[in-house]
Amino acid sequence: MSRWIQDGDNVDITNERKKGTFDTERMSAWIHGGPEVLKRRREILSFVKSIDDFKDPVPTEFMSREERILNNARKVVAMTDNTDQIDGSDFFGEGMYYQALTMGRDLHAMSLHYVMFIPTLQGQTDDEQLDEWLTKAISRAVVGTYAQTELGHGTNLSKLETTATYDSATEEFVLNSPTITAAKWWPGGLGKSSNYAVVVAQLYTKGECKGPHPFIVQLRDDETHMPLKGIRLGDIGPKLGINGNDNGFLLFDKVRIPRRALLMRYAKVKPDGTYVAPAHSKLGYGTMVFVRSIMIKDQSTQLAAAATIATRYASVRRQGEISPGKGEVQIIDYQTQQFRVFPQMARAFAFMAAATEIRDLYMTVTEQLTHGNTELLAELHVLSSGLKSIVSWDTAQGIEQCRLACGGHGYSQASGFPEIYGYAVGGCTYEGENLVMLLQVARFLMRAAEGVRKGSAKLADIGAYIGKTGPKTSRLTTHYHYTDADLVADLEHAARKQVFRAYDRLKKAQEHLSPEVAWNSVSVELAKASRWHVRVYLVKNFLNKVALAPQDLKFVLTDVARLYAYDIITSSIGAFLEDGYMSSNQMNEVKEGIYECLAKIRPNAVALVDSWDYDDKELKSVLGRRDGNVYPALLEWAQNSQLNRSDVLPSHTKYLGPMMKDARSKL
Amino acid sequence: MSRWIQDGDNVDITNERKKGTFDTERMSAWIHGGPEVLKRRREILSFVKSIDDFKDPVPTEFMSREERILNNARKVVAMTDNTDQIDGSDFFGEGMYYQALTMGRDLHAMSLHYVMFIPTLQGQTDDEQLDEWLTKAISRAVVGTYAQTELGHGTNLSKLETTATYDSATEEFVLNSPTITAAKWWPGGLGKSSNYAVVVAQLYTKGECKGPHPFIVQLRDDETHMPLKGIRLGDIGPKLGINGNDNGFLLFDKVRIPRRALLMRYAKVKPDGTYVAPAHSKLGYGTMVFVRSIMIKDQSTQLAAAATIATRYASVRRQGEISPGKGEVQIIDYQTQQFRVFPQMARAFAFMAAATEIRDLYMTVTEQLTHGNTELLAELHVLSSGLKSIVSWDTAQGIEQCRLACGGHGYSQASGFPEIYGYAVGGCTYEGENLVMLLQVARFLMRAAEGVRKGSAKLADIGAYIGKTGPKTSRLTTHYHYTDADLVADLEHAARKQVFRAYDRLKKAQEHLSPEVAWNSVSVELAKASRWHVRVYLVKNFLNKVALAPQDLKFVLTDVARLYAYDIITSSIGAFLEDGYMSSNQMNEVKEGIYECLAKIRPNAVALVDSWDYDDKELKSVLGRRDGNVYPALLEWAQNSQLNRSDVLPSHTKYLGPMMKDARSKL
Repeated sequence: MSRWIQDGDNVDITNERKKGTFDTERMSAWIHGGPEVLKRRREILSFVKSIDDFKDPVPTEFMSREERILNNARKVVAMTDNTDQIDGSDFFGEGMYYQALTMGRDLHAMSLHYVMFIPTLQGQTDDEQLDEWLTKAISRAVVGTYAQTELGHGTNLSKLETTATYDSATEEFVLNSPTITAAKWWPGGLGKSSNYAVVVAQLYTKGECKGPHPFIVQLRDDETHMPLKGIRLGDIGPKLGINGNDNGFLLFDKVRIPRRALLMRYAKVKPDGTYVAPAHSKLGYGTMVFVRSIMIKDQSTQLAAAATIATRYASVRRQGEISPGKGEVQIIDYQTQQFRVFPQMARAFAFMAAATEIRDLYMTVTEQLTHGNTELLAELHVLSSGLKSIVSWDTAQGIEQCRLACGGHGYSQASGFPEIYGYAVGGCTYEGENLVMLLQVARFLMRAAEGVRKGSAKLADIGAYIGKTGPKTSRLTTHYHYTDADLVADLEHAARKQVFRAYDRLKKAQEHLSPEVAWNSVSVELAKASRWHVRVYLVKNFLNKVALAPQDLKFVLTDVARLYAYDIITSSIGAFLEDGYMSSNQMNEVKEGIYECLAKIRPNAVALVDSWDYDDKELKSVLGRRDGNVYPALLEWAQNSQLNRSDVLPSHTKYLGPMMKDARSKL
Repeated sequence: MSRWIQDGDNVDITNERKKGTFDTERMSAWIHGGPEVLKRRREILSFVKSIDDFKDPVPTEFMSREERILNNARKVVAMTDNTDQIDGSDFFGEGMYYQALTMGRDLHAMSLHYVMFIPTLQGQTDDEQLDEWLTKAISRAVVGTYAQTELGHGTNLSKLETTATYDSATEEFVLNSPTITAAKWWPGGLGKSSNYAVVVAQLYTKGECKGPHPFIVQLRDDETHMPLKGIRLGDIGPKLGINGNDNGFLLFDKVRIPRRALLMRYAKVKPDGTYVAPAHSKLGYGTMVFVRSIMIKDQSTQLAAAATIATRYASVRRQGEISPGKGEVQIIDYQTQQFRVFPQMARAFAFMAAATEIRDLYMTVTEQLTHGNTELLAELHVLSSGLKSIVSWDTAQGIEQCRLACGGHGYSQASGFPEIYGYAVGGCTYEGENLVMLLQVARFLMRAAEGVRKGSAKLADIGAYIGKTGPKTSRLTTHYHYTDADLVADLEHAARKQVFRAYDRLKKAQEHLSPEVAWNSVSVELAKASRWHVRVYLVKNFLNKVALAPQDLKFVLTDVARLYAYDIITSSIGAFLEDGYMSSNQMNEVKEGIYECLAKIRPNAVALVDSWDYDDKELKSVLGRRDGNVYPALLEWAQNSQLNRSDVLPSHTKYLGPMMKDARSKL
């Protein structure tokens, strides 16, 4: 019997769990990387549950921003006090889980300290600097952030306005924000929590600008925590999500910092002001690929949470009748409900599979790098950028579909959806705006297309299809006989076609426009090509993983993978019907395949989402709670409302009450 | 020169305004219904600006929920004190504008008082009851809400659990909530503001259930405002949006109310408990059609606001270079940016046109009703349900596209987008969940299809295409020669095809399944048919309006309308390529048409959004402000952050500070 069933659970959800045709524990192990990983997850979970400092006094939805910030500070200190509880080398696995359990979806005051400040020190300091700063950072003697983006400047680093002008007389740099648009803007933890930052500024020496460079800068006094002279900083105000973090702004008024504040692993400035240019390029693709694999996993975790909530709620919510007189049905029995929710579940599986694969590929390729070839890493970096874009967008869309599928209650913060959405959708923008990312992928695709046309293409496995010749028409007969190979061939056809459509349009545009203007004039088609490239990878990777799954899990995973692939095909019917590659009948077969998948997934739906192994502490959703006892829990949750602290509010006493009294007196 | 240009404005936005090729004032008049309407709008605006009680002490984003509720109560009393400033009979026009200017996107404590409580009294009371209650309600001696939805029950009214059991001994009803799922849940203003409600409960008399009926119930004491005995109520907690409203819950513990609390215009209960059934059906379609026209206008107003913000911001934001060395470009010059934002602008125009048309049609049909035929009203009601569904969904999607197009700053609440989205997306769920609405439309479409197949169809103009025979293949040659008639024929082809596909699948399913199960098994296809039906209407209506526009506005409106139509076609390419109705070349023509529209709209983009006539007070967006001076305003806005009230927060003093100090002592 499923470990998810307990006494006192909602009967409908228990029945769903009994319907499941596979062992959820084995599925959890398959998803997370083996029984040992599951065991560790549960150890981490009980540890977190055992520590008082990790408990929220009320659900965080009811806290003001100030309360949330305070609550998070307590938790982040406790979390970093106890890092010996996890394997610090496994951030992708244990680290992310530990952080999700302790901090929820708010990040924390030290997020950038760990994700950007320390890695930058590790990558950009010379040995002496490393010794000084890394010790302080790792011991938590300082809290640092990474200040690059400015109010008026995002992705285009070369246009940053903050200046660091070297003064050889005092051997100092003078940091300055010459305009309002030069204000550093967005860095997490910058507003109130951090006392140090790596600041990226235009380096001027001997009257020449040498471009953006990183400097380590003290922002606040060690003892008083007051901003240092010439430094103006604060919180940038509330956002769509992640309001437990103090994203900040920062302006410099001619602030002097020592020459050695410049991180000098690559570029240097000598005491006399002589600039020494870096010997080789600063940052490999490696770190970025790894960060992307983290992001993709994080996104898939949010989408899976949304799918878990919607699926469980749909199994306990009864509304309307399908057959008259038989009572209200579980809404999960409506085809439209399945059509809304199950594809999101399938996406989450596909994205998780991709996150793991990218991390593994990165490790393999890094290993191979010792033998020389960097080409593969570049292609992998391109793919990871594209994945970041597709996954974050599909995740955001999918979360909203799950929320809407929960009707009115999905709109309440009790559902968890507003927080999940606010948190996840940020991923469409940070670490590279999605469209910018897709256009980077397109640069690679256009080079590949050019290579193919010229017969000189050298493509790794990921992009090999661009140089292949596929079938002229789809080999699909019925969806029962649609092989993985044929399905992939059809997707590759659509992708290849769009790649060359964009390429041909680009070439044509270049005949009468400058390269850059030509590029802009076809950028919508370029972005479309990139989307296809990434989706082909996602489907192939997912199918490959499923093909290797144990026999007792493979049958249900196949339904999920097929639903994912069919959903992609039927969302772009035109790409397959075009030029008669598929007939309308073939397309109808794919549509029938979807309905077939929905029906087959239906009895396993709750077991599938259980397999993701969410504890209620991580899920943070009244609608998605394990026991299915949603309604009493909603009523209990609402009691926390700030407005319920008194029966009669000042809004009545001051305004509405006198209005009514006055009217009554005139009746 | 455009009235939108003022001294001190951002130079880029001024240049955009100078580029506009039409008179924004004439366009505003066309949009809003004539120069007289514009004049009235500006009178209302100056009145609102002149009243201190309408001013927010700080932007509402920075208020806690308690502060927001208090702020709103002050404003709503002032707003209703001054209704003589507007034409009360014109809620669609003056009323909505006045309310938007005063209350923003938070609704208010008396929203349901006016939208549901008073109309229900007007529609459901007998003369004596009307006299008593309407006087109290209109004079604001009581504040009422409408309590129907329950924690466990939404659209399926027959399953409501709250009971009103008649006791002939005392001539009273006993109101009771037998379970937790019977708790009334969601009514606006129920938690704290209202002291009365119309409560919908299952009427029991002489041991028999007579189904749900409306009762007027006092909830709180007139003087003390404390909940009356047996009544438990409160706020349901924070939501995705509209957090200035106290949506509430309500439980009855055997609360006695007089017999005459039953609203007795239709059904009655005599003193001895005899139930008198209503003579005729209770509510016509009329009110619902009118409410939908309001909703559609409200949604289009939100989408237009989002498009205004994104367009203006894109004209002042400079980022990246298209041509090297020429400096950073306005992001509005990127094709991908235009492709994201301009279609949302086009949708907003199309939806506004539909809202006005539905309201006008409703008035015409209501007039015609006096002559007998109700068939048209039914079809109009069906259409308005479908429009509500499509418009609210496309609006939500469109707002998010506009937000994402603003990059990082779109994520800040300074942009206004989080509030706009939270407010607008609620429309997908309330007043009929979108999918439920679409399936209602499908019932009409299936009857129409059956009629056509049997040769007995009697279709009004809206659905006439279902019975028509269109061309076998699209008549499109090039997009320059694509007439409105041919375009509409193509859309009608796609819609008709989907209607009959759904119909044929339904018939086939009915061969081996019960009607209800068959319906469920094809509901995804049914919903798709409904979407087509509505989109055909939206395009036709917009094209018709544009065809009648003054010559000097028509040229730019044509670009907008074409963009709207082409966007629909290229979002469903498969529907047109299928069975060779269109060739790939023809589809490419439509795609070229899009790029052409984007390029033509580009110079008029700011002028077009200016024409919607948003004052900054209504728009509430730092990114979208008229003057384009976005960056200083962002910095100023951020100073309001609750976290900026002190330099050093308790999160530092209590947690992060001691952590660092401890670490420093060990270095």
